[in-house]
Amino acid sequence: MSTAVDPSRLSINQETVKQWSLPELAEGCAKEGITAVGLWRAQVQEYGVERTARLVRDAGLTVTSLCRGGFFTDIEEAARARALDDNRAAVDEAAALGTDTLVLVSGGLPHGSKDLAGARERIADALAVLGPYAEERGVRLAIEPLHPMFAADRCVVSTLGQALDLAERFPAEQVGVVVDTYHLWWDDQAPAQIARAGRGGRIHAFQLADWVTPLPAGVLLGRGQLGDGSVDFKAFRAVVDGAGYDGPIEVEIFNEAMWARGGAEVLRETAERFRTHA
Amino acid sequence: MSTAVDPSRLSINQETVKQWSLPELAEGCAKEGITAVGLWRAQVQEYGVERTARLVRDAGLTVTSLCRGGFFTDIEEAARARALDDNRAAVDEAAALGTDTLVLVSGGLPHGSKDLAGARERIADALAVLGPYAEERGVRLAIEPLHPMFAADRCVVSTLGQALDLAERFPAEQVGVVVDTYHLWWDDQAPAQIARAGRGGRIHAFQLADWVTPLPAGVLLGRGQLGDGSVDFKAFRAVVDGAGYDGPIEVEIFNEAMWARGGAEVLRETAERFRTHA
Repeated sequence: MSTAVDPSRLSINQETVKQWSLPELAEGCAKEGITAVGLWRAQVQEYGVERTARLVRDAGLTVTSLCRGGFFTDIEEAARARALDDNRAAVDEAAALGTDTLVLVSGGLPHGSKDLAGARERIADALAVLGPYAEERGVRLAIEPLHPMFAADRCVVSTLGQALDLAERFPAEQVGVVVDTYHLWWDDQAPAQIARAGRGGRIHAFQLADWVTPLPAGVLLGRGQLGDGSVDFKAFRAVVDGAGYDGPIEVEIFNEAMWARGGAEVLRETAERFRTHA
Repeated sequence: MSTAVDPSRLSINQETVKQWSLPELAEGCAKEGITAVGLWRAQVQEYGVERTARLVRDAGLTVTSLCRGGFFTDIEEAARARALDDNRAAVDEAAALGTDTLVLVSGGLPHGSKDLAGARERIADALAVLGPYAEERGVRLAIEPLHPMFAADRCVVSTLGQALDLAERFPAEQVGVVVDTYHLWWDDQAPAQIARAGRGGRIHAFQLADWVTPLPAGVLLGRGQLGDGSVDFKAFRAVVDGAGYDGPIEVEIFNEAMWARGGAEVLRETAERFRTHA
């Protein structure tokens, strides 16, 4: 449980140092000896997909995941078709960047709807279409259960158990899950579900952020630096490692106070916190 | 599922019309034909426990619950002893008010602690002491699972399943649970857990509030008027009724915009929404 984490498992999700451009991120990681990053579609598209692929390749960086596909819960047919098209594009971008993992934020309740079960079924419908498309391109879809406070407006998949109920309808090479401490730390069922995910070979990403209070308005940007909050990362990692996962560990923190600081300082602090707390 | 709710089941939790004093609440309920209220300790203590008991008795009001006992998770011995004393006082107040239900908000993580399991065990320790004390006075303790977004700072009991795991260590006459739509609406396990609670005779209170977004800073005061948000109250009530519960249904909404309006207007709206949505 108190085994030191292998520092080479650290991957920096680019949102953690959102103040940086992609070239700044590549340069900063090189200086800090960090060899892996998680990327976001909007920033990649802005810089250019091929250009980003070249940048990370030249910098010797591994792309551990691309965020995000998803938003599958619309009822209207045209909106659902658009979502599928957009997700095929996301798969293509992931493949171009050389990452095998596309993170999915599945979508909240459509406007005016109160039907959680129906929304969850529409996610399964989309996965049935996208799973084979992704597998052909060497990309795995990773359902991220989001904290229940996002169930209405972002993601009706609120627990790892729910994410696995969806993922297990498909081959593990097509659909797995994201284990993110920020979303799952409170759940006493998480350890058993992490073991279940490990047995099925479905832990496709492992992400860290700390839980800090009070939450800000809108709650999205309330994540904390590792060690600043309530999450017992060593205990959590012991469970994930114990489930057979030995892949990269992404630090993904959305925090306006961290974005207001210099990127290099935040990156150094994050690497230190990772070694100490993870 | 679409059976109309019996309007006489409505109980108004006084926080819903926090702008009102206790006499205003009693008078307002009489005008609106509402015969039951849920009360809060701070307001009752301010007005006087015996004086409140007399007020509600004279007004013909039933007190369906008293909020709140709890905050059992401190580690330090003196703080735990103080919490037990305070909870014995809360039981005495509940008995004086003639209600059989004391709602418990169990407490979050102590400062600097990351040990959720330990905190949950300390809740059980406190229940072992308080359960018999409450039963002797005709009061049932009702563990309220709070939404997981409150796990760090208010309540480490985040699901109905966890609440029942705790409650079932004790006789149902001593310890049960609160079923509150605001805290449980997102959870696909809630229906099975409500059935479990019903089988054990442990549904000691049923409370309604809607889930609306965006959440305000601190998230505590973000509850919505019935019908304004994501909760399917009729489906939820069908599950609770189906579990054999036929008691009062409390509307408990913390919402600053509602507190800024006239109490009579809010009470009338709430009664209307109850008839339409519950």
